[in-house]
Amino acid sequence: MKTTGGSDAAKRNAGESAAEAVEDGTVVGLGTGSTAAHAIRAIGRKVDAGLDVRGVPTSFQSRQLARDVGIPLADLDSVAAIDLAIDGADQFAGPHLVKGGGAAHAREKVVDAAANRFVVVADPSKAAERLTHPVPVEVLPAARTAVAGDVRVLGGDPDLREAEGKDGPVVTDNGNLVLDCAFGEIRSPGELADDLSTIPGVVEHGLFVGMADEIHVGTDDGVDVERL
Amino acid sequence: MKTTGGSDAAKRNAGESAAEAVEDGTVVGLGTGSTAAHAIRAIGRKVDAGLDVRGVPTSFQSRQLARDVGIPLADLDSVAAIDLAIDGADQFAGPHLVKGGGAAHAREKVVDAAANRFVVVADPSKAAERLTHPVPVEVLPAARTAVAGDVRVLGGDPDLREAEGKDGPVVTDNGNLVLDCAFGEIRSPGELADDLSTIPGVVEHGLFVGMADEIHVGTDDGVDVERL
Repeated sequence: MKTTGGSDAAKRNAGESAAEAVEDGTVVGLGTGSTAAHAIRAIGRKVDAGLDVRGVPTSFQSRQLARDVGIPLADLDSVAAIDLAIDGADQFAGPHLVKGGGAAHAREKVVDAAANRFVVVADPSKAAERLTHPVPVEVLPAARTAVAGDVRVLGGDPDLREAEGKDGPVVTDNGNLVLDCAFGEIRSPGELADDLSTIPGVVEHGLFVGMADEIHVGTDDGVDVERL
Repeated sequence: MKTTGGSDAAKRNAGESAAEAVEDGTVVGLGTGSTAAHAIRAIGRKVDAGLDVRGVPTSFQSRQLARDVGIPLADLDSVAAIDLAIDGADQFAGPHLVKGGGAAHAREKVVDAAANRFVVVADPSKAAERLTHPVPVEVLPAARTAVAGDVRVLGGDPDLREAEGKDGPVVTDNGNLVLDCAFGEIRSPGELADDLSTIPGVVEHGLFVGMADEIHVGTDDGVDVERL
């Protein structure tokens, strides 16, 4: 699990604050990453105490953790609606996010976009005035060179993500590759998001534009909640 | 291989006409379907006669046929450029196409978009004033219900494509599912294409907007070439 940036106490305060928003009898999207993991553990404790929820995982990792802490699971295609999704971010600026450091952003985007309310959990190291983080772009394996060329046309610098624990590139849970695409400061996230979506061979990119309803930013001794 | 609509003679005339456009020393995108197959066979005969080309297949089917007829193959990510792509269409209206009846439209779009010149091969049954054919939308398996809901919001009627030869749905060469989405008459293909591309969980849709450079429409006794 990636744990870059931010103290564990800050991440825990953010995750536990978001878990407080989970209501009885609801369906909850369970995000990926070290901060969302704190939310999942907190929801597990609420389930132990009698809370009735079903969780829709955004990744292999969040599914496994939810099982470990006893949250009943539901498949995304079997629930009528997702009431609340809780997920992390690699960077946020207002309601705009960059996600995908864990290569789970395709399913995360499906779940987070389907939720009636999307709560982002983060620590202060993820905040920015404007997005500058490289945008992870999941691509069909055969399309990686063509997509890289199209990303350069958009002013980006694409870099094929290398794996650890296997030779060669990272392969996503969907069997695809990831190009981390540096654009410098992203002045028009909505425009870039649309441009990336329309590149043939792009499965999903990590720009989540205007999607967050709340951001819970944990600190070592508390949490700041931004409602957007 | 799907062979719906149009006579075989018309398809052969279209395919062989397009194959005439293949020049020595070039890289050619090899399309999928019954009409493109005639082009691949004709290119194979030209290779037998000494033509030097490398083919980039758009699908499992076109790769296999190209091997069978002796066209040297190249991987999409190993060629500097694709000089010419030849591919079929389920329907065309001017330079706009609907593709994906064979569920190969994701890789087809990557190859056809990367080509310097894209020649469509078709028979007269594929021509329309405006596109009305349901748009095949390849989706991540877990996202099919969420995508179907988003397609309905766009005014479409999504239908999960069922397989023959296996129980359950068609699974694409990329491991995904296909929703055939009927929109009736599509008045703004560019707008719909962008809307479909930005739906989370959509891998690729079958609207090819403004991409065709030429359309070779075969008839029983000849071919009409439209330059666009």
